[in-house]
Amino acid sequence: MPGMTDLTLTATERLLLGSGPSPVPERVLTALSRPTIGHLDPVFGELMEQMKARLRAVLDTENHATLAISGTGSAGMEAMVVNFVVPGDRVVCGVNGLFGLRMADALTRQGAIVERVAAEWGRAIDPARLIDALAGGASALFVVHGETSTGVCQPLDGLGAACAEHDALLLVDCVTSLAGHELHVDAAGIDVAFSGSQKCINCPPGLAPFTLSPKAAERLGKGNCRSWYFDLDAILGYWRESTPGAAPRSYHHTAPINMLFALDESLAIVLEEGYPARWERHARAHQALRGALSLLGLERLAPAAEALNPLLAVSVPDVVDEAAVRRELLLDHGIEISGGLGPLAGKIWRIGVMGIGAELAPQRRLVSALSEILGRDPHDPLAALELGWA
Amino acid sequence: MPGMTDLTLTATERLLLGSGPSPVPERVLTALSRPTIGHLDPVFGELMEQMKARLRAVLDTENHATLAISGTGSAGMEAMVVNFVVPGDRVVCGVNGLFGLRMADALTRQGAIVERVAAEWGRAIDPARLIDALAGGASALFVVHGETSTGVCQPLDGLGAACAEHDALLLVDCVTSLAGHELHVDAAGIDVAFSGSQKCINCPPGLAPFTLSPKAAERLGKGNCRSWYFDLDAILGYWRESTPGAAPRSYHHTAPINMLFALDESLAIVLEEGYPARWERHARAHQALRGALSLLGLERLAPAAEALNPLLAVSVPDVVDEAAVRRELLLDHGIEISGGLGPLAGKIWRIGVMGIGAELAPQRRLVSALSEILGRDPHDPLAALELGWA
Repeated sequence: MPGMTDLTLTATERLLLGSGPSPVPERVLTALSRPTIGHLDPVFGELMEQMKARLRAVLDTENHATLAISGTGSAGMEAMVVNFVVPGDRVVCGVNGLFGLRMADALTRQGAIVERVAAEWGRAIDPARLIDALAGGASALFVVHGETSTGVCQPLDGLGAACAEHDALLLVDCVTSLAGHELHVDAAGIDVAFSGSQKCINCPPGLAPFTLSPKAAERLGKGNCRSWYFDLDAILGYWRESTPGAAPRSYHHTAPINMLFALDESLAIVLEEGYPARWERHARAHQALRGALSLLGLERLAPAAEALNPLLAVSVPDVVDEAAVRRELLLDHGIEISGGLGPLAGKIWRIGVMGIGAELAPQRRLVSALSEILGRDPHDPLAALELGWA
Repeated sequence: MPGMTDLTLTATERLLLGSGPSPVPERVLTALSRPTIGHLDPVFGELMEQMKARLRAVLDTENHATLAISGTGSAGMEAMVVNFVVPGDRVVCGVNGLFGLRMADALTRQGAIVERVAAEWGRAIDPARLIDALAGGASALFVVHGETSTGVCQPLDGLGAACAEHDALLLVDCVTSLAGHELHVDAAGIDVAFSGSQKCINCPPGLAPFTLSPKAAERLGKGNCRSWYFDLDAILGYWRESTPGAAPRSYHHTAPINMLFALDESLAIVLEEGYPARWERHARAHQALRGALSLLGLERLAPAAEALNPLLAVSVPDVVDEAAVRRELLLDHGIEISGGLGPLAGKIWRIGVMGIGAELAPQRRLVSALSEILGRDPHDPLAALELGWA
């Protein structure tokens, strides 16, 4: 038999303070490894109902159609695009980083006529410009709430009302913001939102939380979605509640059972802390770390009013070999942070402030290690960090 | 916060002898719950190389482009369709069960002109008919090697050579056959094959093993795939080997890290047993169980020469309330088997003979419990089972 190797990789422990995956609590890993059960088992049906309720609470929505797409966060984006845009649709897409660019790419592949409203990478887009672009008769407005490539939080002010007025759908990427930055899906007038399991929810990657408003649900095609795998009409037939007298859950594809065990447990942990406490902790963790890194000469890319709490992107001074420092941090200290993407490659570090990573202890480890590698005295940065948490 | 519940579900143990998911070994659950690491971590790169080598061995292929798609088995089907068919293509699709039907549906959504070559559910398709259909100038031939809805194994004889002759691609669904029924991807002339993690590989659901031949790789579009998530050209950029001097792995989407830990361990277990031993064990397990169930009046749907070893589908006599028996088996005995789908709903049971489920001990539990529920003396069926394994 060709190609078999004898290599056996032992478990590697990393402190995950990059752009995601984020650190996964022991409770979640334990849930992940529960014995697998069938996707049509009534016990699994109960778990799905519990998870849907928890997801609604985490998303702050009453949307009945709230579920997890069987794929990573980008699968959530794809499901959004293929179900709510048809070829020839005119759509508006905010682009101020890699994930807005990715969305515009996916929309173009779907055959939409995409009007891009761009801003500099590292800045938010003025909502008024997005609203103006809607006026020409767009069927949807896409924005990235938490831009993972730059650490910018996009203000959603007025977007929901403008979409309602123009009978357009407001479609939002909440991958990095959900459960770490204030977000009210219903109050913001969001029609469709997707996220990823591996950011502030602290679950391993592999699932995309997803919700759609009743208005969005009405626009779902019945069997004419170009994608079989992401056909939400069929997927919702599997996720519907089994109640006596109602149509039973129907088989679509085999759900990723163990990943859903883990997601449910992750959501429970988010809700035990609750909002607004969780959002406030992320804001504080962001500020504390920012203060400490500033003393190491690492300044935040985004202006204060536009910063995304769960992801702190800082400029790396020219004199620093960013890739070498990042590699040393990973291999010698076991700490992962992320580099820049696209035009920001080699110029920034992206540091996750997500869930259990948004605590004093992991941040202390990072600041100490980074000070050491940069040849700086860690005293003042650590003092600033402690002060930020005090 | 709306909708939160207090329900806490404890772990449920099931003996999974349905159409999948199959039983998951403890070793695999342990691998699944290893601490999460980053998708660009060099340690994870090593794991990917090891897994690719193991996947090639399990698929019996030398294809360089061998990987796992980040989704369930049906995501593998979708990736196949969106990368190797463009709107307007004429394609031939074998349909003799739900999964052939699903493939024809996915092809139609993709804009292909689909020529269906059908056979009765429960029978294989005569390969000569598939070859004849190719003659009209088709760009691809799709078949389901192991039809999970009926327990039929499709002979692949001559299909590879015919596709080569007509410059068509041979695209095969190996979801239920892989690692349980004899299959040689390269020797059969298969250009693209996909499978699912949760059948004979005994991994939880959530990944789709996938391989493409050099001929298929040449046909990959460069950035013009209609799907962003399943764009293989981009995905292969992430899965490529990191070697000094070569282009580094590029980020596409965040891989489902923990699921890949589990898949790698599952593949190791398959290879420890090796082929042909593993195929022979599945054949023996199938025959033994078939003999035992026959004594309970449960006859196999497929003729002997067309039976799929990993899935035994048996007709349920009219006097038996199939759903009630299946429910009692699940809730009172903790054993899952599957019912029929589509035209076979209520008429058959589908019993998995997959990996660690294809052993005497779990089959003994099933035969005992089924005898009890059906009000039959288990003595003779159990004796037949033991004899089949002797």
